[in-house]
Amino acid sequence: MIVIADNLQGYRTEIRAALDEEDPLPVKDLVARVERAGARMIDINPGPLGRDSGKKMEFLVRTVQEVSDLPVLIDTADPEVMQAGLTASRTRSILNGFSLEPRKMKALLPLAARHDVDAVGYLLDPKGQPPVSLEDRLGIAVELDQAFRKTGLSAERLVIDPVVSPLLWGDGHRRNQILLEVLRELPEVLGRPVKTVAGLSNLTSGSAAPMEKKRRVEKAFLAMMAAAGLDMLMMNVFHRENVCMAGTCGELLSEKIFAWETI
Amino acid sequence: MIVIADNLQGYRTEIRAALDEEDPLPVKDLVARVERAGARMIDINPGPLGRDSGKKMEFLVRTVQEVSDLPVLIDTADPEVMQAGLTASRTRSILNGFSLEPRKMKALLPLAARHDVDAVGYLLDPKGQPPVSLEDRLGIAVELDQAFRKTGLSAERLVIDPVVSPLLWGDGHRRNQILLEVLRELPEVLGRPVKTVAGLSNLTSGSAAPMEKKRRVEKAFLAMMAAAGLDMLMMNVFHRENVCMAGTCGELLSEKIFAWETI
Repeated sequence: MIVIADNLQGYRTEIRAALDEEDPLPVKDLVARVERAGARMIDINPGPLGRDSGKKMEFLVRTVQEVSDLPVLIDTADPEVMQAGLTASRTRSILNGFSLEPRKMKALLPLAARHDVDAVGYLLDPKGQPPVSLEDRLGIAVELDQAFRKTGLSAERLVIDPVVSPLLWGDGHRRNQILLEVLRELPEVLGRPVKTVAGLSNLTSGSAAPMEKKRRVEKAFLAMMAAAGLDMLMMNVFHRENVCMAGTCGELLSEKIFAWETI
Repeated sequence: MIVIADNLQGYRTEIRAALDEEDPLPVKDLVARVERAGARMIDINPGPLGRDSGKKMEFLVRTVQEVSDLPVLIDTADPEVMQAGLTASRTRSILNGFSLEPRKMKALLPLAARHDVDAVGYLLDPKGQPPVSLEDRLGIAVELDQAFRKTGLSAERLVIDPVVSPLLWGDGHRRNQILLEVLRELPEVLGRPVKTVAGLSNLTSGSAAPMEKKRRVEKAFLAMMAAAGLDMLMMNVFHRENVCMAGTCGELLSEKIFAWETI
């Protein structure tokens, strides 16, 4: 399971300031730290950029790539920012992401084909809402897959995000139980291996629970998702316990010889 | 997921001494501690008892039940000791266990029917060896189920133990990956919900790895087994982290409302 850092977010004070002042140092520092912490990909989520958004995104991507060769996910719903990010990137990048929402299908998905990159498709309905039942989710996966193939990109470039529900929602854990089934059934439903990604931070976001409990819940659910076949996990990589747990799950589920040294 | 304490074992010095001297205090002390630590059932594994084995087992079971009302598993391959344990028990007890090995089928399985108790059936071949492939394991599950039904006991009294492999074996983790598939497929193969139990201590037994890594591997794999449908988990309940993780997994997989307070 590949660990993706979700730490590079424009809402963070130091990143916001770095963008406003075109100061690369805070960005470089953060990137160096997430790489040391175990990230194997970096999600670049600039948040709302105001004017000169394309230029700011270009600055962000270039700055990241001055200190890291890791693949990046360009994480925005703004087509102009997406275009700027994908154009600026010199490493393998992933469009993050599209869904069945008409404006995303129309404005974002074609950029994946134009830049010849992998793209994350969210399991959300055309209104951007998460479906509940297993049948609805698998139906949406089929639609995402069909829409993706129509772009001319090869099918294995699609990365499906089944969208983790916050436990804060009364039925969040029930929805997440269905998410595990979705992960297990996707290959059969789509008739091929299919890459998947999920965001772990969603699980406990907004909860006022103690850190120790949040980490425990996250570790439990990440192990469950790993065993259900999840390929990539986006998370706060400064939560060291979670990164270790992800590595351990990877070893337990690997085809290679199990090595205590590497966990 | 129900936590079963595997701590009450005859090889422990204080339990061995208590048996030899018919001293109930060390047993009572241990039982009180495992119950406080979160055990919901207690496995009573006397080990080899030498002469007066039946009388010693009776002493052990009675002593446990003087301080605890928890259900007990009578864990022995000796039919005389099993008979004594099941007879002595005043709470719900579980025969632990039988397999397709002829002597166990002949001498142990009938005791389950005679005492009208649940029984653990190990997924082992008639020579007592663990099968490797998914097909072989599911085939053995069907045979265990058929043998069990022939005793006249109702099918839901069978508890299948898919037998966790030690990571010390070169292919232990690969075998355990198949174990997860077995857990997921058993209900369909047997055509009904089927109770399952597994022993967590097996996973890391014999490994010289640091405690911290052992606990991490155990927590990862217990979460995976829980999500695959495991009902009961036997473990050292003094490993507090593992007990907490088992409780957290139970909440995440429950149909009830998720409550941070209870994890």
